[in-house]
Amino acid sequence: MATIDLNCDMGESFGAWTMGEDEAMMELITTANIACGFHAGDPVVMRDTILAAKARGIAVGAHPSFMDIYGFGRRRISGERPEDVEAQLIYQIAAMQGMAAALSWPITHVKTHGALGNMAAVDQDLAQVCIRAIKAVDPSLVFITLPYSETMKAAERAGLRVACEVYADRTYDDTGMLTSRQMQGAVIHDPNQSVDQVLSMVCDGVIPTTGGKKLPVEAATICVHGDTRGAVDMARALRSSLARHGLQFAPFATSNT
Amino acid sequence: MATIDLNCDMGESFGAWTMGEDEAMMELITTANIACGFHAGDPVVMRDTILAAKARGIAVGAHPSFMDIYGFGRRRISGERPEDVEAQLIYQIAAMQGMAAALSWPITHVKTHGALGNMAAVDQDLAQVCIRAIKAVDPSLVFITLPYSETMKAAERAGLRVACEVYADRTYDDTGMLTSRQMQGAVIHDPNQSVDQVLSMVCDGVIPTTGGKKLPVEAATICVHGDTRGAVDMARALRSSLARHGLQFAPFATSNT
Amino acid sequence: MATIDLNCDMGESFGAWTMGEDEAMMELITTANIACGFHAGDPVVMRDTILAAKARGIAVGAHPSFMDIYGFGRRRISGERPEDVEAQLIYQIAAMQGMAAALSWPITHVKTHGALGNMAAVDQDLAQVCIRAIKAVDPSLVFITLPYSETMKAAERAGLRVACEVYADRTYDDTGMLTSRQMQGAVIHDPNQSVDQVLSMVCDGVIPTTGGKKLPVEAATICVHGDTRGAVDMARALRSSLARHGLQFAPFATSNT
Amino acid sequence: MATIDLNCDMGESFGAWTMGEDEAMMELITTANIACGFHAGDPVVMRDTILAAKARGIAVGAHPSFMDIYGFGRRRISGERPEDVEAQLIYQIAAMQGMAAALSWPITHVKTHGALGNMAAVDQDLAQVCIRAIKAVDPSLVFITLPYSETMKAAERAGLRVACEVYADRTYDDTGMLTSRQMQGAVIHDPNQSVDQVLSMVCDGVIPTTGGKKLPVEAATICVHGDTRGAVDMARALRSSLARHGLQFAPFATSNT
Repeated sequence: MATIDLNCDMGESFGAWTMGEDEAMMELITTANIACGFHAGDPVVMRDTILAAKARGIAVGAHPSFMDIYGFGRRRISGERPEDVEAQLIYQIAAMQGMAAALSWPITHVKTHGALGNMAAVDQDLAQVCIRAIKAVDPSLVFITLPYSETMKAAERAGLRVACEVYADRTYDDTGMLTSRQMQGAVIHDPNQSVDQVLSMVCDGVIPTTGGKKLPVEAATICVHGDTRGAVDMARALRSSLARHGLQFAPFATSNT
Repeated sequence: MATIDLNCDMGESFGAWTMGEDEAMMELITTANIACGFHAGDPVVMRDTILAAKARGIAVGAHPSFMDIYGFGRRRISGERPEDVEAQLIYQIAAMQGMAAALSWPITHVKTHGALGNMAAVDQDLAQVCIRAIKAVDPSLVFITLPYSETMKAAERAGLRVACEVYADRTYDDTGMLTSRQMQGAVIHDPNQSVDQVLSMVCDGVIPTTGGKKLPVEAATICVHGDTRGAVDMARALRSSLARHGLQFAPFATSNT
Repeated sequence: MATIDLNCDMGESFGAWTMGEDEAMMELITTANIACGFHAGDPVVMRDTILAAKARGIAVGAHPSFMDIYGFGRRRISGERPEDVEAQLIYQIAAMQGMAAALSWPITHVKTHGALGNMAAVDQDLAQVCIRAIKAVDPSLVFITLPYSETMKAAERAGLRVACEVYADRTYDDTGMLTSRQMQGAVIHDPNQSVDQVLSMVCDGVIPTTGGKKLPVEAATICVHGDTRGAVDMARALRSSLARHGLQFAPFATSNT
Repeated sequence: MATIDLNCDMGESFGAWTMGEDEAMMELITTANIACGFHAGDPVVMRDTILAAKARGIAVGAHPSFMDIYGFGRRRISGERPEDVEAQLIYQIAAMQGMAAALSWPITHVKTHGALGNMAAVDQDLAQVCIRAIKAVDPSLVFITLPYSETMKAAERAGLRVACEVYADRTYDDTGMLTSRQMQGAVIHDPNQSVDQVLSMVCDGVIPTTGGKKLPVEAATICVHGDTRGAVDMARALRSSLARHGLQFAPFATSNT
């Protein structure tokens, strides 16, 4: 019987402001990517989120971003030197690693956030920056990233452990990339189609593409959204459907170990 | 022949702004307390400062603060829960520790900055917060703090290693505390008097007080100011004078090991 | 028949984060104090909040704070020069005034936020700072503040127009100040007692105190909380009860015009 | 005899950090563009800079930016809605306008900073955003911008008053744009060539281009750099040379009034 991980971005509250329903979502997921204070999160939110994950046996990791609290890390930022972005990532991963270690619940992985993640997925230089930062802090950390992305390729070349992340509710084009949200059919609204796509990726090891291809994939974790309206209900429905089809849930194993 | 450490706050530039003459000052000191991004410093400044210290064999440590970039950590901030200040300190120390480890030049110590340091020196609860944060990240780190302060007492009770910090240019009252800057005679302007005070503290193990007492002290490090006009010249003069009187300079040994 | 104003803090969302239910609350209040970006709010939130108020004919004003996004302006901050706090207030009031004027819905007043408000109410110097800042931007602006506070006294001495703000759910001591929240009986939980207190203050012009006194007051506006759980329901219940007792609601008249 | 304005970015210190030599530079220029707190500057710096300009009779204006203190407004930021950038500009211009009015030295103009300025110069949508923001705050403000840019075209279409800004030390291509710094010959190092170019632009009304063309221009103001090493000396030399060639200096007149 196949096992899969469900990961979700967590700890994106900030100061006096709350975002998402982390506690409810944690009942459904197996891995939490926790904001590091650069796009969301702060030391108190980080501590509380790690402790909540630890109480449920959920794996935790660093979810670093461009330095952009105001823009929630969604603004595309360019013009910085690659080595400076690398230093920003090292800082965030190290802060999260040390905080988690202090709470006796060490981080297992890194997943980049928002605009940084999107840009690194298609930019070789920025992909290298992410890889170098993770290795600098702890080369045993797993990098959660997308199949066929520049980050995936760079991680594999560098011998970094990766967890290949797939989406239940997004279609893929023939290059293995997510179809642009600008395109019709980019988002899968039919729950049955979502489940079928996941089963194909997890059990059969192939991504069905919009062009009719089947691309090989070692899916290790499914991305679950936490900050949209109805997120908890959607995650619960997906998990239930997948469970009915025989999938089990546990923190990811890495695809190249 | 007696050996003493000279410590200075470093890495207090931020983004596009430069503060102090870190490179020149590093030729004179033996320990650098590096800002962690909450009152000054940023990941790039931290990296560059650690590397500059490493190139000269200078010990580095974390210099955490209240979360207050605008006020440079000098604004007195209250109203936060102690455990939340503790989380802020863990975050900063962990970020610095991880960054320094990634550069193969591990931190040796922690020294609190500005208003946080001043307030913790006289507030038992805030002193405990500092101790708990350091121990949470790494109980082998040394805590640089003032003699006869609440932080010193709390560190000793907790079994935390301390480096007792003394001033060359400030007088002490009969309780062992620095004379308030509001009082006449708080600052020593006569270089000879400064040197005499240091020799007394380092070689004889006593602090001469304004009331004529001699309080026992295990001076481990002298605080050198880096961000005032003429700071480099003053530090150079002090170091030269002390050297002529036979003192040698090296990163601090801890007073209770 | 007596008329009273209901004021509420609004526009305290920030970037990607939402706070409170401003739209629902605006159906109940007559005056909105809008965050200026220093403790909450940002230019986009300010614009949207002003437009929402304009659409309902609600008066708007600036709600300035210490510079403290992380602490939501609730951290008590000291150590700044009074003239520097004054510059911070001028900046915030001017930004709000200009934004509101650009949207053809000019601000009518200023109300200070959180720790700044609490500290200025009992600190003559800080009270003067608030008065000077408001007069510097526009001496015709009304200052919403508490009866018997240092800010009220300073405003009256300076000839600044004031709107005296009272609370429905807090008791007053014999000096006319709010009873400390640390004291038992500081918060009024009985809705009937709340309504009686408001009617006494608005219709009879006296504050009943915990010591049994009746202090004169020219109540111009009632503070309604917007960011607590159930805030909308509580505000609706208060407004309904007051309406049943014959009160009408409209933006405040000033007490000294 | 021709008269020209010399403008320089000012007030780019922040909190505890100083940038540039504003006081010395103010002896040489006639117009100051003052940072509004989004890339540099803060209320205290703004106040002090306005007062210093007022003491010398120097015209002041708002120098707004993307919201990016860490990146000093030099990071290229995209992904925000145009109307949200507009709100950010309105906020900054209004804050500066109100602060300057409170100090009885009203602003005369707006000049955009860094990445925002560079991007708006070649992006019609962003150019429109700048125009709308200025008009929303005060349609009588002058917009300092580059000849042949999208911002210049949009300003002229909108009937906004403009002051055409030229460079003494940069060459122009045949489209009237500054030659890219990546190209050889982009920066003019020969002081005589700089002076000749300025005289051509100011007295003859033409920009000599790298392709040998002469493009018409109504030069109203010359941009002087303030934050580079030797900036004061360079500005002094330029002003002296231009004075020897008969130019006089005064705050700009607008080109379309």
